[in-house]
Amino acid sequence: MSNSSPVVLAMKFDGERKNSAFPDGLGARRVIDLNTDTDILEIINGARYAVLWKPKAELFKRLPDLEVIFSAGAGVDHLLQSPGLPDLPIVRFVDHTLTTRMSEWICLQCLMHLRQQRVYDGLQRKHSWQELPQPEASEITVGIMGMGVLGQDAARKLRMLGFRVNGWSRSGKQIDGIGCFDQSGLNAFLSKTDFLVGLLPLTPETKGIFNRTVFAKLKRNSELASPVFINAGRGGSQKEDDIVACLRDGTLGGVSLDVFESEPLAADSPLWDFEQAILTPHAAATSDVFALGKHVGEQISRYERGEKLQYLVDRNSGY
Amino acid sequence: MSNSSPVVLAMKFDGERKNSAFPDGLGARRVIDLNTDTDILEIINGARYAVLWKPKAELFKRLPDLEVIFSAGAGVDHLLQSPGLPDLPIVRFVDHTLTTRMSEWICLQCLMHLRQQRVYDGLQRKHSWQELPQPEASEITVGIMGMGVLGQDAARKLRMLGFRVNGWSRSGKQIDGIGCFDQSGLNAFLSKTDFLVGLLPLTPETKGIFNRTVFAKLKRNSELASPVFINAGRGGSQKEDDIVACLRDGTLGGVSLDVFESEPLAADSPLWDFEQAILTPHAAATSDVFALGKHVGEQISRYERGEKLQYLVDRNSGY
Repeated sequence: MSNSSPVVLAMKFDGERKNSAFPDGLGARRVIDLNTDTDILEIINGARYAVLWKPKAELFKRLPDLEVIFSAGAGVDHLLQSPGLPDLPIVRFVDHTLTTRMSEWICLQCLMHLRQQRVYDGLQRKHSWQELPQPEASEITVGIMGMGVLGQDAARKLRMLGFRVNGWSRSGKQIDGIGCFDQSGLNAFLSKTDFLVGLLPLTPETKGIFNRTVFAKLKRNSELASPVFINAGRGGSQKEDDIVACLRDGTLGGVSLDVFESEPLAADSPLWDFEQAILTPHAAATSDVFALGKHVGEQISRYERGEKLQYLVDRNSGY
Repeated sequence: MSNSSPVVLAMKFDGERKNSAFPDGLGARRVIDLNTDTDILEIINGARYAVLWKPKAELFKRLPDLEVIFSAGAGVDHLLQSPGLPDLPIVRFVDHTLTTRMSEWICLQCLMHLRQQRVYDGLQRKHSWQELPQPEASEITVGIMGMGVLGQDAARKLRMLGFRVNGWSRSGKQIDGIGCFDQSGLNAFLSKTDFLVGLLPLTPETKGIFNRTVFAKLKRNSELASPVFINAGRGGSQKEDDIVACLRDGTLGGVSLDVFESEPLAADSPLWDFEQAILTPHAAATSDVFALGKHVGEQISRYERGEKLQYLVDRNSGY
């Protein structure tokens, strides 16, 4: 019977939390954790579901009965590059927790740049009482590239904080209160943008897209000194050499980066030392393992009731 | 005729902006700026309106026909302490710009403490890639003391960012989605509060209210290390000696202060040097002079049409 199919896990998460999270989310279903269940057989028969992050090619040979693949994170680029990936439906991890955490991070970064936090930090270190000229959020346009679930949530919250918000996506979208641009409108979008927020998936089209050419097209008559680049998508979308050069020559007035071309960021990267570069270690929106367990359990239930799986990845677009 | 009454200004604002802002807001009405109009007569007959910040006693003797006093800021404590203050209606400055700026600052401070920004700043200075355990906003309760226009706007925005929000006010209020406490519920309110936000007016009842006794009652089993105190109301409401001692002994895990017992904050205050103290120079929500001109113009128009003035100060409560 279908309920007897175990769920195979091959991903990194803190062991103790995972051990309680998955049984919580999956009810009576058996969980096989390939990181810790070392006495498991080479071929795992009857396993129809697997939750994966960066699987090795051999893994798929061990799962002859696999029917649905779940990504353990919001991004699926790692998974789509996996050697030996079978032609099966892939379900993206979409979850309220991940979305709200990402919006916390993006709102925080936009507010820190708006309110000149790093300048005030420097004044505080010097014990210096000095008020800076201060535009308000409504004088700043945030342009978000990538208007999926995360981008739309961030857009709504930034608007509510008072920012003007535009969104750019490959297909263009219609969203109340948000100026929406599609592929052909990229230059117009960039020329109106004070704070550029990257939330793009990593695909062949988006690799290295955040480079000097794009930064040079951002709005330059801003209320604040120079435009700001904020990336919480994928490090592979940015050219860090260009970011460093643009911070040095004033093409960019500041950045907030949570993702990097190579992670962890090398200790000798010049990015660490810019006062106007705010860096976090790919920590903007950690997947919560309890939420992941619940999400996987809900989608398996839908699937076994004969309903359509949600959040399916389109392999042609790469996300 | 009533339109001929000039508006007298006695407040500090950048001269050039003020000179255009007031005529913009007041239409054809004449503006007499006591800071710059040095050739004005000692007794200013026929002046029914004055916009004041910290007036000297002599001022009121010069304005025998005064009918309405406008405060040039959101707080009215300076004005109420003025010697020689006549028994006339006082209109508080309420304005969209001031409210949204204050909410920007409060949301920024709550997010910085939630997302452990000062710890990440320190890690960045050491070029250290290290992810911290991270609660989400829904695990943190922000308790706002002072639920007027500013407190209610901040409460709404913090909720939308995911925080749980409670409000305390002398009278108690009913606000959708916000846990509301009145005077008798202060201890219960404090025991549920992770981040305490002060937005109180300065009155004899609120002087020094943010002291060790109150800080010690805050929630101590938080997801984050220790409770946080954030003050954007009035410096006179806080005991800075207690704040320093509570930061040292861990009663407080962090503070954000925009206001101080004495301003500017003395260069030798120990507050400057705490990593977990975020200080700004009374810059959270600067009154915009254009908005002030518009507000005064609107209230004078209401008054002269025979309508009730809005935002009147209650001298008994002190705000």
